[in-house]
Amino acid sequence: MVRGRICSLSVRDVRFPTSLGGHGSDAMHTDPDYSAAYVVLETDAEDGLKGYGITFTLGKGTEVVVCAVNALAHHVLNKDLGDIVGDFRGFYRQLTSDGQLRWIGPEKGVVHLATAAILNAVWDLWAKQEGKDPRTLLSCIDFRYITDVLTEEEAYEILQKGQVGKKEREGQMLMHGYPAYTTSCAWLGYSDDTLKQLCTEALKAGWTRPAVGSSLLSLSCVNMDPWTSEGLPLDKWFKVKVGADLQDDVRRCRLIRNMIGPEKTLMMDANQRWDVPEAVKWMSQLAEFKPLWIEEPTSPDDILGHAAISKALAPLGIGVATGEQCHNRVIFKQLLQAKALQFLQIDSCRLGSVNENLSVLLMAKKFEIPVCPHAGGVGLCELVQHLIIFDFISVSASLQNRMCEYVDHLHEHFRYPVIIKKASYMPPKDAGYSTEMKEESVKKHQYPDGEVWKKLLAAQEN
Amino acid sequence: MVRGRICSLSVRDVRFPTSLGGHGSDAMHTDPDYSAAYVVLETDAEDGLKGYGITFTLGKGTEVVVCAVNALAHHVLNKDLGDIVGDFRGFYRQLTSDGQLRWIGPEKGVVHLATAAILNAVWDLWAKQEGKDPRTLLSCIDFRYITDVLTEEEAYEILQKGQVGKKEREGQMLMHGYPAYTTSCAWLGYSDDTLKQLCTEALKAGWTRPAVGSSLLSLSCVNMDPWTSEGLPLDKWFKVKVGADLQDDVRRCRLIRNMIGPEKTLMMDANQRWDVPEAVKWMSQLAEFKPLWIEEPTSPDDILGHAAISKALAPLGIGVATGEQCHNRVIFKQLLQAKALQFLQIDSCRLGSVNENLSVLLMAKKFEIPVCPHAGGVGLCELVQHLIIFDFISVSASLQNRMCEYVDHLHEHFRYPVIIKKASYMPPKDAGYSTEMKEESVKKHQYPDGEVWKKLLAAQEN
Repeated sequence: MVRGRICSLSVRDVRFPTSLGGHGSDAMHTDPDYSAAYVVLETDAEDGLKGYGITFTLGKGTEVVVCAVNALAHHVLNKDLGDIVGDFRGFYRQLTSDGQLRWIGPEKGVVHLATAAILNAVWDLWAKQEGKDPRTLLSCIDFRYITDVLTEEEAYEILQKGQVGKKEREGQMLMHGYPAYTTSCAWLGYSDDTLKQLCTEALKAGWTRPAVGSSLLSLSCVNMDPWTSEGLPLDKWFKVKVGADLQDDVRRCRLIRNMIGPEKTLMMDANQRWDVPEAVKWMSQLAEFKPLWIEEPTSPDDILGHAAISKALAPLGIGVATGEQCHNRVIFKQLLQAKALQFLQIDSCRLGSVNENLSVLLMAKKFEIPVCPHAGGVGLCELVQHLIIFDFISVSASLQNRMCEYVDHLHEHFRYPVIIKKASYMPPKDAGYSTEMKEESVKKHQYPDGEVWKKLLAAQEN
Repeated sequence: MVRGRICSLSVRDVRFPTSLGGHGSDAMHTDPDYSAAYVVLETDAEDGLKGYGITFTLGKGTEVVVCAVNALAHHVLNKDLGDIVGDFRGFYRQLTSDGQLRWIGPEKGVVHLATAAILNAVWDLWAKQEGKDPRTLLSCIDFRYITDVLTEEEAYEILQKGQVGKKEREGQMLMHGYPAYTTSCAWLGYSDDTLKQLCTEALKAGWTRPAVGSSLLSLSCVNMDPWTSEGLPLDKWFKVKVGADLQDDVRRCRLIRNMIGPEKTLMMDANQRWDVPEAVKWMSQLAEFKPLWIEEPTSPDDILGHAAISKALAPLGIGVATGEQCHNRVIFKQLLQAKALQFLQIDSCRLGSVNENLSVLLMAKKFEIPVCPHAGGVGLCELVQHLIIFDFISVSASLQNRMCEYVDHLHEHFRYPVIIKKASYMPPKDAGYSTEMKEESVKKHQYPDGEVWKKLLAAQEN
């Protein structure tokens, strides 16, 4: 039973000054401050539950997303949560098809990020109240513009098939978790020495950290029995940022490949630096380092370009991965139709929340393309773990060629941070979408008035 | 000689309550208030010239674009205009590739609209100071992500070929203008009676209005000799909005076709209402009314979808037109590559100003696809006339299958409004990009404090 009327929406601009240490830097984003537009929904229900939602940003521009959240707020305020989730498809479309606001999207850029932040909060709140069955999940998806590839009935069949062996896969997740790989050790802003040191550490440590309680977003009604910590065999994946300078790339790739040996998986990430012919040429020269994929070789909007690159690199054994800046389900639909990618990277905060991510997971299943989510930025790991574990348990039923990105920073600001064990995401155990930040962290990092920014901005002025 | 350092940027939220009369309504945008984020640049030069720039919006959300303009302002302020236009490609890329802000685009949605508003103001200012030759124009284009289809050298060749017969085409424009068609008479929100009345008026009147002085944006260095008003043979085009209800569409299309007769050109516009199979089915049932094109049959992001629709409708003699919500040159590149459209509709305020529009005009020329701009909203006609007349004089050199949209409202708020004579855009004569609004209009329509909105908002509260 869903309870409460949304009586308050607040949104804050929260920024972490990560650019100071070069964290997260790549060929196109040289000085990101990992940030979020942070939404809190309150209801008038007596349970006192709140819904927390974020969308990820890189610092400047967060205030624009905050402004867009406020522009969308009237669609949410004073609505019954029951009415919202009772026709979640309709509500999704109301947000994305507002007769005036859709002009400044539609379903892309700032307004879509704002939509994600709000809907993520709705899912957090809803997930704390109750579980969902396949029909309920489907009723959340807006199939507009994708029925030529996936109808609601086809989606239902996929979810029905996903019931087979579900119990075993739940057990497997609870026991071993979902395989992760790390990007932390090869940001473009790091020196060779830092790179070497971080790579050594990652190889040695396996990111084991003390487990704390957590739980699957009630998406997939996982069995909540405790799990043992016997892990999967350790098979680590490493990712290196490329694309700024070919000679640098050759040197760095050689360094990493030498350290990790020939068997471990290496991926490369160009962050959209190249034109289509350039991507093919550049990657041909990095082929000797045996990358599994090249990520974001060109513009995220270029479906036909990715298809051409995929075709050219296939003989070299290099796949194409993209998605973190693909702005909606229509782009993913076409990437699948055009055979433009071999690895699909959803971003939990760019697409329109769980609603739209579900549609992409289902289309990927239909085309049998593995989903390997993007999860670098603040909060992305917390959210995406729900999606990817759901994907394994209820949709793809496979771990082959699948892994979820993981970056080991800023988790300390979340109330229910991800748990990584032996290079795997362990299923979250607390109800909700793991989106709540610690109030203390929010207060400190609020822009421009939080303590951290007050100091930094004052220092900049001097 | 380019003069001045940008010493001030102001941006205002200007809205016209057009929804009160159902103007501009269509299947997806049922209550638009035609609006603009309105940018004014000032320099420290003694000439006192200002640059005016707008981007078009539909009411709500204009404040989000205003916020984005402010977020981009630091890239413009305190820059020498000479430095900006001296490396305009670099400046364009600086705006569109800001390491933090590009995350909330990139090159799409709110930030790209804001980019357009700012750059439109730069062009207005620059155009008032001096003319441009082909090499200068090319130096404004960011070829990133389109070199697989158009290189700078190819673009140069196209412009060089465009020199042949240029003088004659200038004369032709000055004499007859650029053919226009009107959408005003068939907005979805109008009743059958209103529709009939407006259609009759348009047929009778030919929109003749007293000519006032105007001039080509110095893009193409047009001969400024006075022209006679001997017109082209009158061949009017009419456009009807479809997509909400098939029976309504059949009735309205029959009504209009009967009024205009079998020879006049009729276009249809679905404003993205359909999925791909639905578009094909629906249009098959409207084929008897002989539309030249179906505009925006589905999502503006769906390149492969438009290609499928184009293929299916070709045997019925119906072309596909799209572009007003296509968010950048990468999308247009693919629409051309995939043979997904037969008519290309740029929007002067959605793409990144003249810089990006130029790249699209040049690609369209390469594929020999006619450009028929979108120009409904406030200010769009004022801006796009420069682009389309430039296209004819210097790029396409053809009027075949070409026409520019025209909607007859809100021009009275501009200081240099478009001049329509015998259903044609007459070349603008004043220097600049025709972007300046009357200060009185801006003040009255500023949201939420202008006189017009104060009254309306107070009335809503009661």
